[in-house]
Formats: sequence, C-alpha cells, structure tokens
Amino acid sequence: MVELLRALEKTADLVGRELDRLLVAAEGPRGRVVEAMRAGSLNGGKRLRPFLLLETASLFDVPPHRALNAAVALEMVHCYSLVHDDLPAMDDSDLRRGKPTVHKLFDDATAILAGDGLLTGAFAVLAEEATHPDPAVRCALVASLAQAAGAAGMVGGQMIDLSPQRGQLDLEGITELQNLKTGRLIRHACEAGAILGGAGPAERQALVDYAGALGLAFQIADDLLDVEGTTAGLGKPAQADAALGKATFVGQLGIEGARQRARALVAEAQRSLRQLPGDTRTLCDTATFVVERQV
Amino acid sequence: MVELLRALEKTADLVGRELDRLLVAAEGPRGRVVEAMRAGSLNGGKRLRPFLLLETASLFDVPPHRALNAAVALEMVHCYSLVHDDLPAMDDSDLRRGKPTVHKLFDDATAILAGDGLLTGAFAVLAEEATHPDPAVRCALVASLAQAAGAAGMVGGQMIDLSPQRGQLDLEGITELQNLKTGRLIRHACEAGAILGGAGPAERQALVDYAGALGLAFQIADDLLDVEGTTAGLGKPAQADAALGKATFVGQLGIEGARQRARALVAEAQRSLRQLPGDTRTLCDTATFVVERQV
Repeated sequence: MVELLRALEKTADLVGRELDRLLVAAEGPRGRVVEAMRAGSLNGGKRLRPFLLLETASLFDVPPHRALNAAVALEMVHCYSLVHDDLPAMDDSDLRRGKPTVHKLFDDATAILAGDGLLTGAFAVLAEEATHPDPAVRCALVASLAQAAGAAGMVGGQMIDLSPQRGQLDLEGITELQNLKTGRLIRHACEAGAILGGAGPAERQALVDYAGALGLAFQIADDLLDVEGTTAGLGKPAQADAALGKATFVGQLGIEGARQRARALVAEAQRSLRQLPGDTRTLCDTATFVVERQV
Repeated sequence: MVELLRALEKTADLVGRELDRLLVAAEGPRGRVVEAMRAGSLNGGKRLRPFLLLETASLFDVPPHRALNAAVALEMVHCYSLVHDDLPAMDDSDLRRGKPTVHKLFDDATAILAGDGLLTGAFAVLAEEATHPDPAVRCALVASLAQAAGAAGMVGGQMIDLSPQRGQLDLEGITELQNLKTGRLIRHACEAGAILGGAGPAERQALVDYAGALGLAFQIADDLLDVEGTTAGLGKPAQADAALGKATFVGQLGIEGARQRARALVAEAQRSLRQLPGDTRTLCDTATFVVERQV
C-alpha cells in the first residue's frame, strides 16, 4: 500500500504539471476564466481517474507519457463536474479539498464558464495528435469520454441526484444514480486505457467489470466517510448528504452492511483482474485503497 | 433573397428533425435533463451556423446529409451557450426567441446540466462514424469545434462580456469580444465545411476571411436591432445591452456609422467568396441577409 500511495502521488504530480502547462494564463479580462479553470483543476485532487487510466494503459505496455493526454482530458472533465456541482444552484458547497470552491474564489458566472472551458478543453486535448498517432484511436477516446460524461452518463446521474425523487430512491435507484454520476467516468478511465492499448473485447469487458465494481465500492466508501468522517479530514462538510435528506448506501444497508458490500465489491473487482495481461498488482491494490482511504 | 429564406427554412427543418431524433426522451428522473436539452435546442432558432456549414460544404460537393452531423454538433454547442448565457448568474434573461428560457421552464440547476449535456453531446455526435468515414477528418472537426468554443474562443468572449471592464471597452476591445463570443463559432461553421470538403489552404483562408467579416457584420446588426427593435419583434428584451451599460458598436460608431461599417463588412465578406470554387451565390446572399434581417 505504501508503494501504491507513492505511485498515486507520482501520477498526481505528472497530471498536475501537465494541466499547469496546458492552462496558459491569458492577458486581459479573458484571463479571469483561465485563472478560474486553474483554480478548479490545480487544487490537489487525488487524480484517481487519471491514475486508473495510466495503470490500465500500462497493462498493454503503453507508457505513461503516451497516455498522458487522455488522462489529463479525463481529469479536466472530472474537475469541470466538481466546479459545476459546487455551484449554489447545485450542491452549494463552499469548500472542496479544504479550499474555497471556484464560485467562492470568483463568482457564479465565472465558475459556470470555467466548467464549460474545462469540459470543452478536454475534447481539444483528446483531438491532439499527441494523444495517439492513430486518429481512429483519438475518435474512440472522444466517443467514450463524451458518452461517459453526457446526459446518458455523468450529467444524467447529476440530474437524478438533484431530482425531487432523490430522497425516496431505493437501493436499485441509488445504485443507478451512482453508476451514472461517478461510475461512468471511472469506467471510461479503464476503457480509455484499453483503447490506447488496443485491448481485445474480453480484456475490455474484464476492465469494464473491474471499473463497475470499483466505482460502486468507491461511492459506498464515500457514504461511509460522510457518516464517520470529520470536516477537517474530508476537506468538505461531513454528513452533508445525510443532512440534505439524500438516500445513501449507508442509509439503505446500515454501516456494517455497507462495509460488507464494499468489501464484496473489492473482491469482485479483483477477480475481474485475473483475466488481464501484465502486472495487475497496482490495480488490485487500488481496489483495496478506494474503500480504505480516509479522504 | 426569397430563395435564401426558403433554403434557411429547409436547413432549420433538417437540423431540427435531426436534433429531435438525437435527443431521445429518457425514463425516470434523468428524463428531466433530456427534456431541458430539447427545450434549449428545439425552440425555433434560425440555424444560421448549421446553414453556413452545410452551404460551405456544398461548395466542395459535400451533400447536406454528409455534413449533417457536423452541423448538428455545432448547433448543439450554440444552443448550450444560449442556455448558460441566459442563466440568472450570467445575462439573466427570461425570454429567448419569444419563449421562456430553459431555467424559467425548469430551474437553474437543470439549465446548467442541460447546457453541459448539449456541449458534451456535440462531441459524441462528431466522433460518430456517420460524421465522416475518415477518423482524421472527425478529429479535425473535434479540434476545430473545441478551439472555437473553449476558453480561447466563445467561453473567453463570454468572460470578457461579463467582466467589470466590459463597460469601458473601446472599439478594438468590443471587436475582440465579439470575435471570440460569436465570431469563432461562425468561423468554425465555415472551417468545418472546408474540412469536410477537403479544401486547400487558400480556400480555407478565403472562408476564414468570409466568416470573420460575416460574424462582425452579424454582431453590428444585432446591436442595431437592439437599439431599433422591439421586444415583440426580437423575441427577447430590446435595448437590453444598452440598459446594462454595455459598450456596443452602435455606442462607438453611432447608428449611421454602424450601418456603414456593417455594409463594408458585407462587401468584404462577398469579396472573399471570389476565391472559392462552386456556386457561392447563397453564401453571398447570406452576408446581405445577416445585416438586413429583422430578428
């Protein structure tokens, strides 16, 4: 696990430096939106999604620098979603990773535009030749990311999360919500690695299975942290979901039941890895990490 | 001009039907965001950008159905920008094309998500094989659209439009703002036609020049309509920009000066067309239309 944390840190550093390089400060009033995009993406995230992408790609012998554009594009989409989610019209969060959110640092309009800029920029990055020499691969990445992030994916999940029906969701409903809201982007991370590596259909399916179980385990762990954690430890208000009357995995399964389900999902994710080539130890450890993390 | 209006209507019909087909109603709470995306894109726009794209492509013998995906993707990006622009945090508009805006029909959160969904969906559409059989062409379209719409393009222009410095912009500043906010997407319309048609560098430059002059003429005409028009005719509040204390072309040049400048730009746009193959009469009429339109 020490090794995993070191690898995560290395990826976070790599992705952070690349985002810093890409988001070039601009002169004049337009510069404000770039500053806000930087604030929304260079704020010390775990970079778990890029990490999964780089690790998956490495199973197929794709070195990190050849998967970096795809990883950065994915992180830009993740960051845009956080900037928009935090808006007063949405989750109305003042803190993210222990720092003021983008609309607190700037204003709502600038935060909306910064999110739009990050989302749009992700596709600009993917379309670059540096992403992969074969344009068919780049197109496959664009299609996969757009489907994962769009109305049938993350945006759809966010809509469910904000719907009046949100409080009354049963376990199946919460599972669908989380599969869309966080699961689809995590699945894209693993699929993008497979696309870059030219994986076959069976390998791709194994990665989709891995990502599905991992994503759900990640969300259950989030719910557990929300109940058990402190604001200081989380860098965002604890028990926010429960306070908002949102149905959660913990509410449905109880604390012990949720812990058991998370452990079962980790085992399921790890079983899927057996059908894959290369050294899957890091991805195996990552599954354990997502439920044991304290942030 | 009667022929042009008929051609515009035909394109609006074609694009509207394709958007209607693409934005498939969804069951359950997620369905709300799709409804909002439909409300934001199936509300009777002129479809000027898709029209320019289809007309430009036709110069290179690309028939409308082969340029339709690119045209629809562009319109989705235009519609997303209107949905976000109309938000209370941005321009705070209740009416668009004579109908309540998306956040009035739904709520702010749903409008933010609907815009996000339309923007993301545009790239999903472009990545489809139906856009063009050659993935290199699809990638070029993704790159062009993302650059036109992003922080160095439309989003950047919107940032300038909302900045505290907005009221004090001089003619150069207003021109830069409008080139980014509306010009870049209009330029993408013409470049996308050139990309689909495999145009050479000189033809592409001529189209960029045409689009640059046309886009500026379009915006000056908008400013003139804002001063001279009525709310009923425009389908949105008249004199909104002047009331908001925004510097406009009319404010800088006067009504007569702005009219003259618009006419000069139309002539400039039409001169650029001479370097292009095929029948450019419709594009020529379009330049006249954008300054003579009453809506």
